Amino acid sequence: MQAVDFMGQYLDWKRLISSTLSKEIMNEAVPEGAKGIVLAGMGGSGIVSDIVYEMLKQAVNVPLTIVKDFELPRWARKGWVVIGISYSGNTMETIEVIRKALNRGCFVSAVTSGGKLAELMIREGYPLIKIPGGRAPRSSLPALLTGVLRLLEMLSVERRLSEYVEKAMYILDDEKFIEMWSEKLVKHLSSKIPVWVVNQKYYPLALRAKDEFNENSKTLSLINVYPESAHNDIVGWERWFGPVASVVFREEKDEILAYIAKYMQEQGVIAEEILLEKATSPDAYLKNVLLWSQIVGVASVKTAINRGINPAETRSILDYKEFIKKLRSK
Amino acid sequence: MQAVDFMGQYLDWKRLISSTLSKEIMNEAVPEGAKGIVLAGMGGSGIVSDIVYEMLKQAVNVPLTIVKDFELPRWARKGWVVIGISYSGNTMETIEVIRKALNRGCFVSAVTSGGKLAELMIREGYPLIKIPGGRAPRSSLPALLTGVLRLLEMLSVERRLSEYVEKAMYILDDEKFIEMWSEKLVKHLSSKIPVWVVNQKYYPLALRAKDEFNENSKTLSLINVYPESAHNDIVGWERWFGPVASVVFREEKDEILAYIAKYMQEQGVIAEEILLEKATSPDAYLKNVLLWSQIVGVASVKTAINRGINPAETRSILDYKEFIKKLRSK
Repeated sequence: MQAVDFMGQYLDWKRLISSTLSKEIMNEAVPEGAKGIVLAGMGGSGIVSDIVYEMLKQAVNVPLTIVKDFELPRWARKGWVVIGISYSGNTMETIEVIRKALNRGCFVSAVTSGGKLAELMIREGYPLIKIPGGRAPRSSLPALLTGVLRLLEMLSVERRLSEYVEKAMYILDDEKFIEMWSEKLVKHLSSKIPVWVVNQKYYPLALRAKDEFNENSKTLSLINVYPESAHNDIVGWERWFGPVASVVFREEKDEILAYIAKYMQEQGVIAEEILLEKATSPDAYLKNVLLWSQIVGVASVKTAINRGINPAETRSILDYKEFIKKLRSK
Repeated sequence: MQAVDFMGQYLDWKRLISSTLSKEIMNEAVPEGAKGIVLAGMGGSGIVSDIVYEMLKQAVNVPLTIVKDFELPRWARKGWVVIGISYSGNTMETIEVIRKALNRGCFVSAVTSGGKLAELMIREGYPLIKIPGGRAPRSSLPALLTGVLRLLEMLSVERRLSEYVEKAMYILDDEKFIEMWSEKLVKHLSSKIPVWVVNQKYYPLALRAKDEFNENSKTLSLINVYPESAHNDIVGWERWFGPVASVVFREEKDEILAYIAKYMQEQGVIAEEILLEKATSPDAYLKNVLLWSQIVGVASVKTAINRGINPAETRSILDYKEFIKKLRSK
């Protein structure tokens, strides 16, 4: 794929959300009083689990459990809902988890563009949202997220979730803002190992930024999540720390992260602070995460282009997937 | 504290476990049928949550939720058990979570050497295990872990947990083995940024290793957890990645991690493989995690000494704690 086409996949997020909102939910159904919800997915699909967890952990009454593995925890059994999230629908880890969930009598559902996961839902008669295919999984974040939020709304876990996405999509269309901030990030991180610094609530944004710089820019990248990092990672900034540059995403009035940003600068870390609008509701949070995921995505694609790398190609992931396929068919 | 005294705190783990096993549980009590369990703690205390989660996720029937923050998820309410883990007993984050749990009518309990957390348990009449004080939190890992496992046994979450610890402690006394492997790690990681590579089950060991090299050796450090990292971090090894050296902890016959280790070596990453005994039961897993936590701890102390740094001192954590204290008393 040409880099310019790939970049286009980050600039059409409003349209992508709109089109996902209009997709029908196949096999619509509501299990009685879910005891808990497992969100299962890997990489660019699994990041949706983290966003949903932080977005809803102060809103929902049932426990959420995130799975990024082949295994399903023992407590996920009859009465639990297990949602599989896989853009391709052929992610081995996610399919194995969904199969285990079916064997245990869990209620399952899925968000995918097709593949075996879609087949499984259709065959077993469980809810499925098919999102637009033919893109990279990571540039389809808004579609995957919209799909999962619509499923959670259908399951009566929380109301108004599709309304939140609908409101959020209008801020994903500001090309001037995207251009300005992505350029700023590109310059700041040029020839550096990026360190993404956030509080627990924005852990998904830092993770997303790391993943995007891994996949698109082919670079090592790391994250610090406060307050936890104040008990360990922070000490790593006392001495020599290699060729890094950090980006601190913090809500206005987050005094802890303001302290951390200042501390890092005093230690000689090149640190750029990005102020997010204060978000006290799930919909305001959703806006922040989507907007900055979009900007970070564009910055990681630009960084790849500057380095003469193809941002779309992720050879080592394909090799791993081939390996796993062979391993599992042995 | 002298480095040699501090090192001693990593070599007496057998005695430390033994002494924690003999401590009385104050206010012993069992709530009827816990709906779920929250493990709340930060840094060197909070790592216990991760170990317990991975050790018991295929064994327990009720959901486990880990909290490393000031916030308690909404689903933790009456009927849930919230366990506070804080070596000093004065960790602001953990105390805030326990206070919120009390306000919501949760059943609480704690493992600590004293402080406000102990006072709170005594005043409110909830179960408490007081572990030996006067040490560094991070070198007290076996005591904190033993305490939490004993509480979970008391709560009837799982049986035989203290028996498992008792069996595990005998392998923590092999000074020759510790010496050999810690020296090997020290040489391998000298002047490097360590990258700890594991599968999901051993995520706590990688996290522990990172934390130890942060706190004791004052170095940046990072982790890769497979299979998740095969969907993002792996791409970061395709190109230039700075002055890193990796350690792969893998169980014998873990073919995925064997593939990853080989892949990293082919990319030019200096990678040392450490084979763990295959662990199919919680007690075998516990042994692996404790033994290698001990070795990694010793290696991180040695690395500090080689660099002329005091391993015991963590100035930036103390500064953060001072800052938080002032912030919260405003």
